[in-house]
Amino acid sequence: MDLKDFLVEQWMNDHEGRAVFNMTDTCVSPLSFRELSALDTEHLLDSVILDYGEIKGDSRLRKEILSLYKSGTEDNITLMHGCLQANEAVMYALLDRGSRVITFTPGYQQFTEIPQSIGCETVTVRLLEENGWMPDEEALQKAFETHADMLVINNPNNPTGTLFDEGYLEKLIALCQRHGTYILSDEVYQGLSEREVSVSDLYEKGISTSSLSKVYSLAGLRLGWIKADESVIRKISVRRDYSIISTGPLADSLALTALRNKEKLLERSAQIVSENRRVLGEWLAAEKKASVVMPGAGTTAFLKYDAAVSSERLALGLLEKEGVFFVPGSCFGTDKHLRLGLTRDTETMRKGLSILSEYLRRYS
Amino acid sequence: MDLKDFLVEQWMNDHEGRAVFNMTDTCVSPLSFRELSALDTEHLLDSVILDYGEIKGDSRLRKEILSLYKSGTEDNITLMHGCLQANEAVMYALLDRGSRVITFTPGYQQFTEIPQSIGCETVTVRLLEENGWMPDEEALQKAFETHADMLVINNPNNPTGTLFDEGYLEKLIALCQRHGTYILSDEVYQGLSEREVSVSDLYEKGISTSSLSKVYSLAGLRLGWIKADESVIRKISVRRDYSIISTGPLADSLALTALRNKEKLLERSAQIVSENRRVLGEWLAAEKKASVVMPGAGTTAFLKYDAAVSSERLALGLLEKEGVFFVPGSCFGTDKHLRLGLTRDTETMRKGLSILSEYLRRYS
Repeated sequence: MDLKDFLVEQWMNDHEGRAVFNMTDTCVSPLSFRELSALDTEHLLDSVILDYGEIKGDSRLRKEILSLYKSGTEDNITLMHGCLQANEAVMYALLDRGSRVITFTPGYQQFTEIPQSIGCETVTVRLLEENGWMPDEEALQKAFETHADMLVINNPNNPTGTLFDEGYLEKLIALCQRHGTYILSDEVYQGLSEREVSVSDLYEKGISTSSLSKVYSLAGLRLGWIKADESVIRKISVRRDYSIISTGPLADSLALTALRNKEKLLERSAQIVSENRRVLGEWLAAEKKASVVMPGAGTTAFLKYDAAVSSERLALGLLEKEGVFFVPGSCFGTDKHLRLGLTRDTETMRKGLSILSEYLRRYS
Repeated sequence: MDLKDFLVEQWMNDHEGRAVFNMTDTCVSPLSFRELSALDTEHLLDSVILDYGEIKGDSRLRKEILSLYKSGTEDNITLMHGCLQANEAVMYALLDRGSRVITFTPGYQQFTEIPQSIGCETVTVRLLEENGWMPDEEALQKAFETHADMLVINNPNNPTGTLFDEGYLEKLIALCQRHGTYILSDEVYQGLSEREVSVSDLYEKGISTSSLSKVYSLAGLRLGWIKADESVIRKISVRRDYSIISTGPLADSLALTALRNKEKLLERSAQIVSENRRVLGEWLAAEKKASVVMPGAGTTAFLKYDAAVSSERLALGLLEKEGVFFVPGSCFGTDKHLRLGLTRDTETMRKGLSILSEYLRRYS
C-alpha cells in the first residue's frame, strides 16, 4: 500500500542530527533512563519479567492513565507503541476502502495519508491564520453536508498550537452526531493547560489518543494509548494481535512510574514551555518581520515570516551555516512559515531567534 | 479494514493466565529485567536518553544483528517492535489490493489475514504430516503456475517445527525467481540449529524477519528487525514514519546487551529445548495414542492424538480441571492436534504429558 513521504518526519530524520540550536523539536527536553528509574521508588523494575505481559497493557497502568480523564474504566484503555501507532491502529480498525475522512490543514500528515493508502476519500479543511488558526467555518460546514466516517483532529494542533476548547468541541460533536461520525482526537500535546478537554469524555464516538512522548519527555519509552468506547477497543484488540501483541512489561512498568510522578514531570515541562513562550513574546515585540498566533496550548507554534526566501531554503541555510534547526512550513503545505518547538532551554531559544532575525534581514 | 480473530493469539490471551503447566508457550522461559541488566557490563543503560534515538535503530545494534547473517550491511537492517510487526510492515509496504500471496498451512494466521485485509488474493499450500510436515509439492507447483507477488513462510514453522533447509529454500527460490516473487521468511525461531539458513542471505528478493522474543527469551523488549534489500528497507522506512517512528533507545540498548551475550542466551535456550525434546521422545515411546513429527528446529511441535474428542474440548478440559495448557490444533485449522512449546522446565513437561496421557485414555 503506497504512502507518500511523511515530510515533517523525514525532515527531522534527515537533519536533526546536525542541530546545534534545536528550535523545532516537539518533545519537551527528554529525561534519561537513570532520571526516570530514580523515580521508581516502589522498585517496580525489580519484578519485571520480560515476557509479553498483559496483552492490553498492565492493568495498574491502564488505571493510572484513567486519572488523566473524567470518564471511563480500564476497559476503555488499550496501549500502543506511541500516539502515532495509536492513531494508525484506530484508522486501520475503523476505516475501509471508500470511507470518507475529514481533517484539518496545516496538520499532521498521517491523518490524510493513512486513510488515502487504505483507499478512503479525504477532505481537508483549512485552519485560517487570520482566524487565530481556527477552521474555515464555511468549508467545515460544507464538508459535513454529506456523510463522513471520521473526523481526525490534533488537539492542541501540531504545528499551529490551536486549542479546540470544550465549547468548540461541542460544535464539532454536533456536526458529527448528525452522521454518526467518529472523532479521532490526537491529544498527545495535552497536559499543560487547564482549558484542554478529551473528546472521549464528551462523545460516545470520540476516541482520544496520547502518549508519554511530548509533555512527559519520554519518547524513548514508545508508550502510548487509546481511550475509546469498548466496541472500538474490541476491534483494536483484534488488530493488535496481528501487529504488536503487547507493549511489554518493561515499558508498561516505567510508564506507570512516570504517571505516578506526573505532577513533577508536567510541572517541569510547563515551566520550560512557559519560559520559551516568554522569550518568544519578547522577540516578537521587537521583530517586525515575524508574527506568531500564540498557541492555545501544547509545545508548538507556527511562525510566519516576511522575507523573500522559501521556508525550505531558509531552514536549510540556517541549519547548514548556523546549526539553527527548524522544520519549514513546506512540510505542512504552508510556505513562509517555520514550525517552532517550545521545548528546549531559553538560551537556545534566544540564540536561535536572534540568528533567525539576522537571516530575515538578509533576505529583505 | 476487517480482520478475523487471530485464533492462536486470542487463545493465549484468554487462557494463558490460568496455566499451571504451560505446555504451549513458544518463548523460551523469559529472563527478568534484572537478569538482563546484569549482563550490561558496558553500562550502556547509563547513557540512555529517552528521546526517539536513531530512527532506523541504534547503529551499533544493527551491526550486531548483522552477525546473525552471512551477508549485508547495516543499511539492510531496520528495527521493529517484534517480529510480528516486522512481518506486518513488510506486507503493508510491498502488497496492494489484488496482489497474490502464497503461504503454508498449518502456519501463522497473520500471513493470510493481513494480505486478505488489504484485498490480496491468498493461496494456501498444505504442509503434509505424512510428508514430515513438508509442503504438498503438487499443490506448490500449481500455486506457482501463475504470477505471485509474495511467498510467506515461517522457518522453522510454528506450529509444526518444519525446518526449510538450504536445499529446500533453493528450490523455493527457483520457483520465485520465475515470477520475481518476494519471499518473506519469518525466522523468529532460528538460533538453535546449525542447519538453519536466512532467506535474505540466499535471494535478492528474500526478506528475513526476526526478534528477541523466542530463543533469546526477551519478548518483553518488543524488539524485532527486518533484513532485506535496501530498496525494500527504503519503502519500509517511509511506512515506519507513519507507524512507530523508532523502537527507542531503551529497547535498542538492552537488545544490544542481549546480542553481545548471545552465546550465553542461546546456550541456555538450546539446553532447555533439548531437554524437553528428550522428555517428549521418552513419553512418545510409551504413549501409543500420540505421535509427533519431531521438529527440525525451533521451539514448537505439533502433537497428533488419537482420541474421540475435539482439540478445543480436550485443551479446555485439561486447562480447567488440571491447569495443563495447550493451544488446540483448531487454532491452526487442524483438529486432533495440540501445539506443544518446548520452552519450560522438564518437570512441567513431564507432568503435563502424563496428565495428557490420562485424558487420552479417558476419551478412548
